[in-house]
Amino acid sequence: MNAAYDRLKSRFARIATLGEAQAMLHWDASAMMPPGGAVARGEQLATLAGLTHDLLAAPEVADDLDGAEATGEWDAPNLDLMRRAHLRASALPTQLVEAMARANSACENIWREAKAKADFPLVRPALTEVVRLQREMAQALSALTGLSPYDSLMEGYQRGVTAAEVEPVFTAYEAFLKDALPRAEAIQARRPAAIPLPGPFPVAAQKALCQRMSQRVGLDYAHARLDESLHPFCGGTPTDVRITTFYAEQDVAKALMGVLHETGHAQYERGLPEPWARQPVGEAAGMAAHESQSLIVEMQACRSDAFLGFLGGELRASFGGDPAAYSTANLAAHWRHVSRGFIRVDADELTYPAHVILRFRLERALIGGDLAVADLPGAWNDGFRALLGIAPPDDARGCLQDIHWHDGAFGYFPSYTLGAMAAAQLMCAARHDVAGLDDALALGDLRPLMSWLRERVHGQGARLGFQDLLRFATGKPLDPADFTAHLQSRYLEA
Amino acid sequence: MNAAYDRLKSRFARIATLGEAQAMLHWDASAMMPPGGAVARGEQLATLAGLTHDLLAAPEVADDLDGAEATGEWDAPNLDLMRRAHLRASALPTQLVEAMARANSACENIWREAKAKADFPLVRPALTEVVRLQREMAQALSALTGLSPYDSLMEGYQRGVTAAEVEPVFTAYEAFLKDALPRAEAIQARRPAAIPLPGPFPVAAQKALCQRMSQRVGLDYAHARLDESLHPFCGGTPTDVRITTFYAEQDVAKALMGVLHETGHAQYERGLPEPWARQPVGEAAGMAAHESQSLIVEMQACRSDAFLGFLGGELRASFGGDPAAYSTANLAAHWRHVSRGFIRVDADELTYPAHVILRFRLERALIGGDLAVADLPGAWNDGFRALLGIAPPDDARGCLQDIHWHDGAFGYFPSYTLGAMAAAQLMCAARHDVAGLDDALALGDLRPLMSWLRERVHGQGARLGFQDLLRFATGKPLDPADFTAHLQSRYLEA
Repeated sequence: MNAAYDRLKSRFARIATLGEAQAMLHWDASAMMPPGGAVARGEQLATLAGLTHDLLAAPEVADDLDGAEATGEWDAPNLDLMRRAHLRASALPTQLVEAMARANSACENIWREAKAKADFPLVRPALTEVVRLQREMAQALSALTGLSPYDSLMEGYQRGVTAAEVEPVFTAYEAFLKDALPRAEAIQARRPAAIPLPGPFPVAAQKALCQRMSQRVGLDYAHARLDESLHPFCGGTPTDVRITTFYAEQDVAKALMGVLHETGHAQYERGLPEPWARQPVGEAAGMAAHESQSLIVEMQACRSDAFLGFLGGELRASFGGDPAAYSTANLAAHWRHVSRGFIRVDADELTYPAHVILRFRLERALIGGDLAVADLPGAWNDGFRALLGIAPPDDARGCLQDIHWHDGAFGYFPSYTLGAMAAAQLMCAARHDVAGLDDALALGDLRPLMSWLRERVHGQGARLGFQDLLRFATGKPLDPADFTAHLQSRYLEA
Repeated sequence: MNAAYDRLKSRFARIATLGEAQAMLHWDASAMMPPGGAVARGEQLATLAGLTHDLLAAPEVADDLDGAEATGEWDAPNLDLMRRAHLRASALPTQLVEAMARANSACENIWREAKAKADFPLVRPALTEVVRLQREMAQALSALTGLSPYDSLMEGYQRGVTAAEVEPVFTAYEAFLKDALPRAEAIQARRPAAIPLPGPFPVAAQKALCQRMSQRVGLDYAHARLDESLHPFCGGTPTDVRITTFYAEQDVAKALMGVLHETGHAQYERGLPEPWARQPVGEAAGMAAHESQSLIVEMQACRSDAFLGFLGGELRASFGGDPAAYSTANLAAHWRHVSRGFIRVDADELTYPAHVILRFRLERALIGGDLAVADLPGAWNDGFRALLGIAPPDDARGCLQDIHWHDGAFGYFPSYTLGAMAAAQLMCAARHDVAGLDDALALGDLRPLMSWLRERVHGQGARLGFQDLLRFATGKPLDPADFTAHLQSRYLEA
């Protein structure tokens, strides 16, 4: 540790503080802002992003990085992360950054109309330009990082895992699913029909229940807020996390499962190592790691038989009606229902990876130059049929459904399934390490799970890349067998 | 207009955009933020303030100001305001700025305890340090602006009016009040006792009423929000104003009058000249001008007989109960009640200026070195007795009641009364220019008043200082006779 490193630490703390301001303004834009504030908000965020970029890419940073010395399990990776951040920020010519911002924003706007009209040709020119610029960026980054172009994009979302590692995992899952899906459907078909849940569910009672359940997960409202937005998300900062959900009077699961999911994200932020706050190494380890934390709460813990048993009592107390509707088996019949659908965000746990595998292959081909944007709808539909045996009736339910590509996000999609797999692997390890984990879940008590996660994941910040974090927490790198074993026991045992 | 001026315009737009981000974060801190977010928020705001200061005080700005040329009724004052802003930012050594930030923050914290305990000696050392640094700042600014030290501080809140102009206006008001207050009290005492307003007033119904009444003033909720905070305020940005209020179940006036007041502020921001957005000349003209806009809505328009007649019907529809309670005379008996009290923020329209006159004299003496902090409580109590004939029973109801001085705000207090006087003067001029203004108010229609204000005040931005703005809008500089005539007709005619 020397003066150059100390200067870098001060600068990165300033950069992180600007990032916090941006996070709050993003949250506000989704949860609070009246529509008339949108234009000014865009300027505010662009100005803060520009200042952040200037601070990151400044020539003094390169000089200090040349002279900086840092050792130890925190400072060494902290300096390494600074180096990567500077490299990524300075790798891209300003014209490219600006061209991307313009192209992404233009494409996103056209996409909204194209999706509403199920009209892919409408967005094709704009998306072609987005892809062209993403490829340019990927190549520029690749030249500096030594990673492949697609891996360079993936690294922007999750460090420490490559497409070459993801590929065989996804191929194996495709094979597993081919066999598992019809079996799960058959088992499901043999079960008695689910009893409808009593409804409607008054929004005020849903809010109170959601808040209480998030507190069960450990969320401390002295450092958090729960609000509403069209798309649920977790934003804010580690000492002031902001989660949102969307309430539907007819469907309590929408808000409730959304809140449990976002609480998993929130608890990750809350548990980041405080002494490293505002340093690169004090941040979360990446998007796949983040998704593992939302999914271990929502999918692994809260949709388990143990927790559903507890939750049934809570639901009955909140909403009344036929007690049989709140039995564990009946809640499972509703909330662990498998079905082949076209829409990723509505997909169940078993078929969700198919949606991601398709996107991973297509975006890799787009960035690699092996697929033209004009051929995307056909490739999508063929791929979808191969994976799930059905083909979308139109592009709105096909390649137009997600905002990601149309907003310039390539390399993000694998994070969803890597996160789901990591969640299963972490749950296995936690069950092994912590006696009575499921007994606690049956009492609605997530504290044993959350303290294990705080030690093994949250408290490690970004010290380790994805594979190394899993090695640290569970003793092995990504092992999809834990995920398929989980699916086996949940969906494939009659 | 030349290249140097264009560069300055770009830079000031950036500075204003950072200001918008800060405004949103301030709003959030008061209206939304959980308590655990306070420390991080302080850092975020300090970082943005630091960046803003760096952008303002940079040596390139001085060079561009030397070379800039701008003419015309907008560009010339715009360049002048840039010059003043740069001067003020660069006049103060960094150590002084930091020492003030620390001293103000320390004093504010101690003040909370001192006020709760009514213990002035507790805060005296901290306040002494705050005053010492304010004097240092005032002298540094004075050396550059050519204004007196106290005027240099006042200019930070309201340009274009000096203490030498304020002094005789306040002295004359003191004389007016000496006679008017006992007369108003006597007239009030002869009236029948007010009928209590039916209550409690359910918060949901209050919210709906407040929103509707703010819309009557013209507030467009596509560009605004109404929320709750401990102290009502107006924040946000011109295209996204955020007003807040505080609901008390027993007292509908608290929230309602608060919302009308803040809506006046909000409409000023909404009506600022759009082509000059994010330029110094496109901002509001100052704090006294701002207060004139909240008070013309709340005090001049909405507490008028005409509007109270309309409001009575709205209240009856919202809350029911004895119709006689909602008569204009009865609402006036409640909401235009005069009384000698110790607390500025609870004061009526007639006695409020006395609270401000006292503070103006004391803060001027503190900054001028004619009053020691140790002598403040005694000077306060003597001054209060001279103005209102009563003396505070303790310092919590005396010199400890306001946060302003303890947070380093000196030179702000006159704005309240200058604003009240300007509001009366503007209302006079509007009544003269716009036929049927009061007929419209009787129908709950503020559009005629608001369009006059938009043209004469809001749309002028910061082009003119306080006196010049009044000259432009009303044909004369500040003329307190309009205010005393208003008080005469409202409080002194039996």
